[in-house]
Amino acid sequence: MTVEYGDAVEQVRVRPGMTVGELVEELGRAGAYNAGALSSAADIYERMLRDEKAVRFFGLAGAMVPGGMGGIVADLIRRGHIDVLVSTGANLTHDIIEAIGCRHYHGSAAVSDVALREQEINRIHDIYLPNAAFVRFERFMQDVLSNLVEGSTVSICALLRLIGSRLDTGILAAAARAEIPVYCPAVQDSMLGLQYWLYSQTHRVVVDAFADMPGLLDRCFAAERTGALLVGGGVPKNYILQSMLMTGNGFDYAVQLTGDRPDLGGLSGATLDEARSWGKLTGEAQAVTVYGDATVTLPLLVAAVLERLASS
Amino acid sequence: MTVEYGDAVEQVRVRPGMTVGELVEELGRAGAYNAGALSSAADIYERMLRDEKAVRFFGLAGAMVPGGMGGIVADLIRRGHIDVLVSTGANLTHDIIEAIGCRHYHGSAAVSDVALREQEINRIHDIYLPNAAFVRFERFMQDVLSNLVEGSTVSICALLRLIGSRLDTGILAAAARAEIPVYCPAVQDSMLGLQYWLYSQTHRVVVDAFADMPGLLDRCFAAERTGALLVGGGVPKNYILQSMLMTGNGFDYAVQLTGDRPDLGGLSGATLDEARSWGKLTGEAQAVTVYGDATVTLPLLVAAVLERLASS
Amino acid sequence: MTVEYGDAVEQVRVRPGMTVGELVEELGRAGAYNAGALSSAADIYERMLRDEKAVRFFGLAGAMVPGGMGGIVADLIRRGHIDVLVSTGANLTHDIIEAIGCRHYHGSAAVSDVALREQEINRIHDIYLPNAAFVRFERFMQDVLSNLVEGSTVSICALLRLIGSRLDTGILAAAARAEIPVYCPAVQDSMLGLQYWLYSQTHRVVVDAFADMPGLLDRCFAAERTGALLVGGGVPKNYILQSMLMTGNGFDYAVQLTGDRPDLGGLSGATLDEARSWGKLTGEAQAVTVYGDATVTLPLLVAAVLERLASS
Amino acid sequence: MTVEYGDAVEQVRVRPGMTVGELVEELGRAGAYNAGALSSAADIYERMLRDEKAVRFFGLAGAMVPGGMGGIVADLIRRGHIDVLVSTGANLTHDIIEAIGCRHYHGSAAVSDVALREQEINRIHDIYLPNAAFVRFERFMQDVLSNLVEGSTVSICALLRLIGSRLDTGILAAAARAEIPVYCPAVQDSMLGLQYWLYSQTHRVVVDAFADMPGLLDRCFAAERTGALLVGGGVPKNYILQSMLMTGNGFDYAVQLTGDRPDLGGLSGATLDEARSWGKLTGEAQAVTVYGDATVTLPLLVAAVLERLASS
Repeated sequence: MTVEYGDAVEQVRVRPGMTVGELVEELGRAGAYNAGALSSAADIYERMLRDEKAVRFFGLAGAMVPGGMGGIVADLIRRGHIDVLVSTGANLTHDIIEAIGCRHYHGSAAVSDVALREQEINRIHDIYLPNAAFVRFERFMQDVLSNLVEGSTVSICALLRLIGSRLDTGILAAAARAEIPVYCPAVQDSMLGLQYWLYSQTHRVVVDAFADMPGLLDRCFAAERTGALLVGGGVPKNYILQSMLMTGNGFDYAVQLTGDRPDLGGLSGATLDEARSWGKLTGEAQAVTVYGDATVTLPLLVAAVLERLASS
Repeated sequence: MTVEYGDAVEQVRVRPGMTVGELVEELGRAGAYNAGALSSAADIYERMLRDEKAVRFFGLAGAMVPGGMGGIVADLIRRGHIDVLVSTGANLTHDIIEAIGCRHYHGSAAVSDVALREQEINRIHDIYLPNAAFVRFERFMQDVLSNLVEGSTVSICALLRLIGSRLDTGILAAAARAEIPVYCPAVQDSMLGLQYWLYSQTHRVVVDAFADMPGLLDRCFAAERTGALLVGGGVPKNYILQSMLMTGNGFDYAVQLTGDRPDLGGLSGATLDEARSWGKLTGEAQAVTVYGDATVTLPLLVAAVLERLASS
Repeated sequence: MTVEYGDAVEQVRVRPGMTVGELVEELGRAGAYNAGALSSAADIYERMLRDEKAVRFFGLAGAMVPGGMGGIVADLIRRGHIDVLVSTGANLTHDIIEAIGCRHYHGSAAVSDVALREQEINRIHDIYLPNAAFVRFERFMQDVLSNLVEGSTVSICALLRLIGSRLDTGILAAAARAEIPVYCPAVQDSMLGLQYWLYSQTHRVVVDAFADMPGLLDRCFAAERTGALLVGGGVPKNYILQSMLMTGNGFDYAVQLTGDRPDLGGLSGATLDEARSWGKLTGEAQAVTVYGDATVTLPLLVAAVLERLASS
Repeated sequence: MTVEYGDAVEQVRVRPGMTVGELVEELGRAGAYNAGALSSAADIYERMLRDEKAVRFFGLAGAMVPGGMGGIVADLIRRGHIDVLVSTGANLTHDIIEAIGCRHYHGSAAVSDVALREQEINRIHDIYLPNAAFVRFERFMQDVLSNLVEGSTVSICALLRLIGSRLDTGILAAAARAEIPVYCPAVQDSMLGLQYWLYSQTHRVVVDAFADMPGLLDRCFAAERTGALLVGGGVPKNYILQSMLMTGNGFDYAVQLTGDRPDLGGLSGATLDEARSWGKLTGEAQAVTVYGDATVTLPLLVAAVLERLASS
């Protein structure tokens, strides 16, 4: 067996005023480690967005909205680059919080959490969220939920669409406008879920855990090609990847931005090659993982790819 | 402000034939980094298990059952050390697979996943699971689900109890015997979920996503004290920690075994101190995080604590 | 104690064609996790480069030259932004290899290393270096070393200056042109070192391990202010930080780009706050750590800061 | 190509009072992720220690002595299980500090480093070292160095032997008693180095950076087989692995305990397979990496292997 190799590594040159796209080109000419992976991710994501036959999934895990990444997701929806969004409940909770006018704040991770508790500030690493936000969140949520028809059964996706239709900015609002589905299999596991529990103390509306699955799987069966941009692992990654399992056809494009690592065995850090063994990706799928903090790699990736799309 | 400090570091001595408990004692005398944290975890977990007033939660994320850690969880249930279990759907899927007589196998992470796919072997890092297991899993699951009453509504916990009652070994079987609840908020996100979808193609039974929450929250409101052993992050960690939020009382004991890191902002790697700011832990809660692979730290921790419990 | 907090998190917006500096501004407005840290790093590095009284150190660890980052380092030297460089021997070895006309190549980490060995290709994660490069390296190095005066004693820095003076491109060439010192305390620990051993089989020139220290420490004593950009940890980080210890004055500016983590105790992943306890940084020093792959964060940081310097 | 697979995963069972060796057996029967790797490491390290023809190297990086791991290294030397030790300067500095009667203390990583600085306490993650130790260290070191012959040239190894001969406990003392060489290529990069610099202000003794290399390489050329236990990466790992390069024969056994990760490209996190491409390991070498905190994995590994050696 002869091992083949590619282009020579070019030493990176950076210039004042270079665009993000130009920087990612430089990273690609260097082509090593996660810089090389990021450049490959841009190539694959560009092809995925240009492929009009491809259904584009987006998986959103990690504390991305408190970290300011919700703006990118909402923009991608508005630009028509996301066909199906799967999110954790927490990201949607924080999206609603911002959309109803509350804010997250720059703080510090080196702080007394007991002092924060006394001041009613919730911490997400170095981001602070005053408790007052949850008071407004409760008012908003109970108001929205009061629109549900007593005795009815709803799907999680319909519930999220209802919420989004009541908002003007953010991810859920953009998804409602664009009429794309937002799935959140573990919706109970979030402040959203706790609000629903509160509502259900005095009302009887059933949230059918599986009601969204037929629609999702129909979409998968119908898709000519499929692609996924996975930010973080968790439920969104697994739910997206497993959705193609039943069709017998894996994903054709996949980009994963994660801070996890494969040697621990968990799905969140698993390589996309591992997903090929399960048939979640096709054998020929274009796929790459970029290891690192998605608050750095996601903006880099998206800015570079939008630049490419705009310039052609 | 005067910074105080503790005992002097003792250089670790290991002896042939020493017990796991003795080793963890040595790690505690060294007291540094994750060895020190593991020793603190044993102290806290011991107190939590000895505290008869404490309700003990266990969070199970990561590919722990394929990695052989299911045996420890089932044993802890049998010994009465788990009162509430929250798991990912994947761990329960693999628990069922083992309980119906299929096996996972030692493999390698350095392998062609395309070749594995051709041989119908699914890979979980360096563990292999032949596809044939899913054929038997489907038969078992469809058989179990056929017992549901057409037109009824069930909770996820009841569904898992039903499954456990049909099994003789493993986590779900032990939980059913011990009559402890198993929660799995994102059950749709697993092979279990896909089986349910398959069943729901021809049957009409609603799985009420929120049906388990009142029982869980009642338990939390009634608890005098609460403790949690969190293996991995994800939904189980968040669902357990948020469960105490509504009561206004946080957890009193918490041990977290994780391979993640805090600087990425995500909940899976977040410190337990961060949880204090939210009120998920009390200000005085005894809590520690051990960073590392839980397939190493969980057996160490449990063996050491069982040794302490047995010797007194 | 009242915890204060800063600006509100702004959701990131990316635009096609935005510059790297604009992207880093956006990351700063989001301000979370490592994106926030990167933005702070740009602020600190900008101030450090604008401070004409500051001596600027650069620490170079990790396989940065094979990964294409040598071009950035050489450019920073040429622009006058590095006053003292401390490197691993490996980075300098690979710098020489590129400077004498050999190349590293894009490869794959998923490959048979035994097959690579048979083809005489050395692997650095996903980068390949054909063995032939070391043949040319040996010829070059033996030729350079033949200029040493038999029976003399040299310092490592002088040896590296001699090598740099024989090259036209790369880090050592730029450093020799700019007449800045390059320190490499563990020079024996590299192919450079093995070449010296080969030479020493038939020649007697002593490399005085400590000859560079007085010059370095004199520089530290004379400096009004000092700053450090640390890429990776290892010997370069420690050697730079300890250099200020003897002066009783710590560094005033420090930026660390590392993929390590603090909880393991090792210096490579240690926080820069820890360095304050030792007096390696002053209590008021401006300092930040960006966790992640430096092949991504270094180009981002340098491009953003050069843009700021150019625009004012 | 047919992928083969091994034994079935056994679910781990832990028992009160089980020995460390029994626990590692259980981890081996589970055989997954880093638990499986640790079990393989025990197999390989056992064979390496039983192989009387093998020269056994030990690489010591990371803050292992402050973390209490020095006791294990000294014991391994006393038991005759280390033939060549390569260490960072920091570990040897802290070994001397403990050997002259100073102590490290249990502290906290969540502390004000500015307050620590004011109290003259140096922090190593959650370990504290009062500055007073360095005062005694200076007195001891200057006293030892005063024995050097003015105008002479010494090797680093000889210098360390001299120090060890003046101590009663710890690594350097054990190495001096056992007459095994201790190499420390980057000795300048440590408090040891700063003490030497202080001494050299008024004395003229040259430390020949390369004087140790012929002895080391002769040992490598003469060895029938070689093995390495690598704790952490850095200079010790690279120096050990490169030492076999010139012989044309790689290592036959290698175990690596590291908290780093391969995707960043740096040597510290590189796989041992990568080392095969360079010829640092033979193609058939038995080798495994255990990812995690070495303060947990090193005691586990050594206790398990000593138990095996004692029981046969």
